[in-house]
Amino acid sequence: MLAQLDKTPLDRLFHALADPSRMRMVERLCRSPASVSELAQPLDMSMSAVMQHLDVLQASGLGRSEKVGRVRTFHIETNGLRTAEHWISERRTSSERRFDRPRN
Amino acid sequence: MLAQLDKTPLDRLFHALADPSRMRMVERLCRSPASVSELAQPLDMSMSAVMQHLDVLQASGLGRSEKVGRVRTFHIETNGLRTAEHWISERRTSSERRFDRPRN
Repeated sequence: MLAQLDKTPLDRLFHALADPSRMRMVERLCRSPASVSELAQPLDMSMSAVMQHLDVLQASGLGRSEKVGRVRTFHIETNGLRTAEHWISERRTSSERRFDRPRN
Repeated sequence: MLAQLDKTPLDRLFHALADPSRMRMVERLCRSPASVSELAQPLDMSMSAVMQHLDVLQASGLGRSEKVGRVRTFHIETNGLRTAEHWISERRTSSERRFDRPRN
């Protein structure tokens, strides 16, 4: 276990993306909302593992769910994607600006 | 421990970003290359913990180091940032396109 500063919402977003199963779920949800069984279908894992991954996505702000009758449907939260993208984009731009700067 | 698919280079990038100390290191390196002690200075942790974080950054493709004499200097790898940003941006755009599409 590495020494750590306190977690922030951004770490939680990157942590949620740092797993191939959750990345697949995000890809699927970006196409359309989906039920738990639709999300589980391409993944070779128990329903309880799928639910744990979905909990991580929801806690990070990348997903939300709603229940209508007996069916729970998951949706992507575009704002979560936008927040993570913005952080990386700012860093990348600042590092590229540095390379473009004339050297004295 | 959650059930997992095999790790990919993208997971490693997001994993590297999923920690506030490493995010600070990335921010610092985007401004300019830095030595281990410069990177450690604002962080309240042992040098060995700092080195472990730097190993994670290098293994992910977000950082590289070079040693000149006795000084090891770390650099940001802009391509790593660009790869992570591109993956998120593609997903976000596809999910936004869906909301813009007329419903029949």
